Amino acid sequence: MDILSIVGIVLSLAAILGGNILEGGHVGSLLQATAFVIVFGGTLGAILLQTPMSTFLRSLKMTAWIFLPPRIDAGSAIEKILGWSQVARKEGLLGLESAIETEPDEFSRKGLQLLVDGTEPDAIRKILEVDIGAKEHNDTAAAKVYEGMGGYSPTIGIIGAVMGLIHVMENLSDPSKLGTGIAVAFVATIYGVGLANLFFLPFASKLKNHVHIQAQFREMIIEGIVSIAQGENPRSIETKLKGYIH
Amino acid sequence: MDILSIVGIVLSLAAILGGNILEGGHVGSLLQATAFVIVFGGTLGAILLQTPMSTFLRSLKMTAWIFLPPRIDAGSAIEKILGWSQVARKEGLLGLESAIETEPDEFSRKGLQLLVDGTEPDAIRKILEVDIGAKEHNDTAAAKVYEGMGGYSPTIGIIGAVMGLIHVMENLSDPSKLGTGIAVAFVATIYGVGLANLFFLPFASKLKNHVHIQAQFREMIIEGIVSIAQGENPRSIETKLKGYIH
Amino acid sequence: MDILSIVGIVLSLAAILGGNILEGGHVGSLLQATAFVIVFGGTLGAILLQTPMSTFLRSLKMTAWIFLPPRIDAGSAIEKILGWSQVARKEGLLGLESAIETEPDEFSRKGLQLLVDGTEPDAIRKILEVDIGAKEHNDTAAAKVYEGMGGYSPTIGIIGAVMGLIHVMENLSDPSKLGTGIAVAFVATIYGVGLANLFFLPFASKLKNHVHIQAQFREMIIEGIVSIAQGENPRSIETKLKGYIH
Amino acid sequence: MDILSIVGIVLSLAAILGGNILEGGHVGSLLQATAFVIVFGGTLGAILLQTPMSTFLRSLKMTAWIFLPPRIDAGSAIEKILGWSQVARKEGLLGLESAIETEPDEFSRKGLQLLVDGTEPDAIRKILEVDIGAKEHNDTAAAKVYEGMGGYSPTIGIIGAVMGLIHVMENLSDPSKLGTGIAVAFVATIYGVGLANLFFLPFASKLKNHVHIQAQFREMIIEGIVSIAQGENPRSIETKLKGYIH
Amino acid sequence: MDILSIVGIVLSLAAILGGNILEGGHVGSLLQATAFVIVFGGTLGAILLQTPMSTFLRSLKMTAWIFLPPRIDAGSAIEKILGWSQVARKEGLLGLESAIETEPDEFSRKGLQLLVDGTEPDAIRKILEVDIGAKEHNDTAAAKVYEGMGGYSPTIGIIGAVMGLIHVMENLSDPSKLGTGIAVAFVATIYGVGLANLFFLPFASKLKNHVHIQAQFREMIIEGIVSIAQGENPRSIETKLKGYIH
Repeated sequence: MDILSIVGIVLSLAAILGGNILEGGHVGSLLQATAFVIVFGGTLGAILLQTPMSTFLRSLKMTAWIFLPPRIDAGSAIEKILGWSQVARKEGLLGLESAIETEPDEFSRKGLQLLVDGTEPDAIRKILEVDIGAKEHNDTAAAKVYEGMGGYSPTIGIIGAVMGLIHVMENLSDPSKLGTGIAVAFVATIYGVGLANLFFLPFASKLKNHVHIQAQFREMIIEGIVSIAQGENPRSIETKLKGYIH
Repeated sequence: MDILSIVGIVLSLAAILGGNILEGGHVGSLLQATAFVIVFGGTLGAILLQTPMSTFLRSLKMTAWIFLPPRIDAGSAIEKILGWSQVARKEGLLGLESAIETEPDEFSRKGLQLLVDGTEPDAIRKILEVDIGAKEHNDTAAAKVYEGMGGYSPTIGIIGAVMGLIHVMENLSDPSKLGTGIAVAFVATIYGVGLANLFFLPFASKLKNHVHIQAQFREMIIEGIVSIAQGENPRSIETKLKGYIH
Repeated sequence: MDILSIVGIVLSLAAILGGNILEGGHVGSLLQATAFVIVFGGTLGAILLQTPMSTFLRSLKMTAWIFLPPRIDAGSAIEKILGWSQVARKEGLLGLESAIETEPDEFSRKGLQLLVDGTEPDAIRKILEVDIGAKEHNDTAAAKVYEGMGGYSPTIGIIGAVMGLIHVMENLSDPSKLGTGIAVAFVATIYGVGLANLFFLPFASKLKNHVHIQAQFREMIIEGIVSIAQGENPRSIETKLKGYIH
Repeated sequence: MDILSIVGIVLSLAAILGGNILEGGHVGSLLQATAFVIVFGGTLGAILLQTPMSTFLRSLKMTAWIFLPPRIDAGSAIEKILGWSQVARKEGLLGLESAIETEPDEFSRKGLQLLVDGTEPDAIRKILEVDIGAKEHNDTAAAKVYEGMGGYSPTIGIIGAVMGLIHVMENLSDPSKLGTGIAVAFVATIYGVGLANLFFLPFASKLKNHVHIQAQFREMIIEGIVSIAQGENPRSIETKLKGYIH
Repeated sequence: MDILSIVGIVLSLAAILGGNILEGGHVGSLLQATAFVIVFGGTLGAILLQTPMSTFLRSLKMTAWIFLPPRIDAGSAIEKILGWSQVARKEGLLGLESAIETEPDEFSRKGLQLLVDGTEPDAIRKILEVDIGAKEHNDTAAAKVYEGMGGYSPTIGIIGAVMGLIHVMENLSDPSKLGTGIAVAFVATIYGVGLANLFFLPFASKLKNHVHIQAQFREMIIEGIVSIAQGENPRSIETKLKGYIH
């Protein structure tokens, strides 16, 4: 559970709505279904047009990470790799065959299979790096869906506001409606800027961070597996892998 | 057929026009041929001035991809490459000669020809990478035509709006026209921001994505052909190539 | 003759001025020497301060490329290189001595001289790449002079507008002049944004594109000359060089 | 003690508040708890949502560096490394064992241990570079927390201002409150822009600079330790390491 | 003497002030000590907070380069290097010992010393490149001090303007002061945008250009010294080094 994500959302909404109330404003005047339809619908439309289906679905799935981050335990992964290196030294690389079946992580399983197949260290590294590279690219693209929404929503908020102002201008003859009209128009701006800065952009940042952590973690696993393939001793592997944790 | 592209356009237009109607605005007041001429004409002029003819024609052709994306089937391409590697192992590289004639993709054909000619693996890789590099550069430049339009249209929308405001200011003595004049001026802003954010920028993003997918696909083909040239066994080639799919 | 450049300029000016007339505006109210002096003079001053003399002169010379692009014929250059490779195979590298005298392009001449001198392939590549690198850097810097002007002119347009508004504000007591005063002030904004988006930024883009094409072209020539130095056969050289054309 | 940091904060606040007083403004009208709650609370919420806990805590700790920069003495570090190289030449690498115990810096200790263990020079470099890379990435991410705040606060200031304007617009019927209402709304803008430009962005810059200096310093230590492993003579090591100081 | 720098400053000030006078404005209304204190003081404070002392002092020293650029004569440097290569061929590398004493440039002296010491070519290159790298990084950081000021000053100009507007709004009851008050407020905007675009950003660009030219020049010297270490003949060195001049 990512407590900071929840605290962040609660805090920013409390500060902005609370501040509005302290100023004597009515929260009600910030709630307008029309403005929301324009800003959120327009932003969603733009992002759907720009995104391939696979990336869009991936970004929906990754959204859960904002509150339930993927579990990454570098410490115990190092333990596991050191265990494999012990097995390899005692029983040879073929001794790792049984580890493949019990290994839950697909990426590590692929690495172990390459070890057992007796693939050359350089080839192992290359194959696994293509794998990471493709995954990191696709995950980053999915995280950038929110970045794109954070780029579109403020400008679509401006479209909403200007449409509202046009509406106001066409009714200038009735000055009593002037103020309310402008107020309504401005809410679209708040939605555009607010959605971008309180949700979309922070979402994108947090997701990109998880993608980076995962890529780093897999770099470490590659390093470990290649070291086993090169027959390095467990102590030296440990020193190497611990450099990834800081 | 790229359904997301169509859904995206329909959704964003529906949200914005629908929102406008809900607010009590008239869609009619958003339709102004003059503002459209200024914003679209000015943007088109700027982009024509900036773009070489070949890039412009290429971008026109690529526009179809937004709705009818190029068919890329990595899975069956891997099948095909594995087939070639079987042939090469049984009949030698010369056995691939017949595959050249039936291969529909020009790039793969070039790779097969290099194999049959007995070119060194490193040379094959280099020649084909120059090929990808040039194609990717030119395709990206074509996709960026829309990015350029997305950069110009909001600022030209501002030119349109300011020209409208000047017109209004010169007729301040007749206040009854004030509101309508400003309303007209603002429509140019909406066109500028709307064209950029609902069309041009998402177009550019989707096209750049297709260019990237194609380049990745060709990277995979290079990897496969070079592996055949190095005489690797089909199983190892398969493991390697599958890393490109995620 | 770059027809797209001319069409672009004519189209954007026609759209904007025509749109203005359709709206009922007077072109006259868009023509103001004072605003032009402020925006163009200020922009020119800023760019002169920022640019070294040699870069500024180079950018003046390169401006002609926007309408008369440098002639680059990759197809016939490949022909020529294949001719050289034939000579080199028949008569040895010394046989290229006569080609040096007739070769009009200085860069190719330098490459041929290195071939005749019997320079090592790797050294040839390195020497010629330093050459390209320096030229590309300086040409890009010259193209960026227009990019710089496109960055400065909108902000200097704002200075002009704000100065105009100050002037208006100081004469608020005479409301009859208010509208005209503001109108005048706004023209500086139009000049700033218009010069940047209809001229300076597209100029920079077109020039940078020519610089890139030339660099690519020279990369191809290096590849050809190095291949001759390595004694490759003409057919393989042809395959390699054709990859540069797409 | 980083005097420039203190002078900078005092100077910018004095200039802005002093300027306000000279203009005849009341400092009191710039002090508004509500606007501060909206801008600071909203910014903090956004950044908490975007940042992982470990990065956030690290950025809190690093904040002290703005006033108390980490002590880095490249000169005496070179002395120390030259001392180690003398020991290694006289007593062999094992002679460095006692230096490990007395060395206060953890990173240097790790390097010495690798030397004593007789690790290959290339392996030492690689292990230590992974170490620097991970630390530099995490420290930079922590410094960017302030960059993020500097990005969010002006836009949240705009949200605060627009909410204030909405409040004003809804009470247009009472024009006497108009001016004060707008004044209050504008303070949120000042807080947003001011916090970003007088605090958050300069903080981020100064911290990123410290992170870079530390990374450079560690690059130098790696270079020294690898040179010792390669058995270079102290004079040549000194020449090499002094290049890092400029 | 960099004439373009002086012409640039004179031209932009003449255009803007002259344009203001032509429009009928008074230069006096653009001169306001208070606005200057706010914008310049605030900008200076922000940049002091962000910059380490050593970088700040370096940027003060480098400011002179804007008008008195550092003298770099690549042509005569090539002559000198060719002279060294002649000496090295006749008398051996030790023959360069006397050249060290008379060489005024510290960087070349370091290179010559490495030659005389008989350092390996690859080691010479690496040592000297660390040297260039550190110097280029620090000089670029110093040039970016002006870039930072160009980033802060427009936003601090906005703070000044908004503070002025707040002051105006609080005195709405006295409409006679309205115009002047707004005029005063706008001057801060002009100072912010003007300082950035007419001074700070062009300064940064010109300085970064000098830093690049120096780095290129030193690259050339490294190339020359390494070529001497490799015993290349003077003619080939000349061809190589001339590629750096374009």
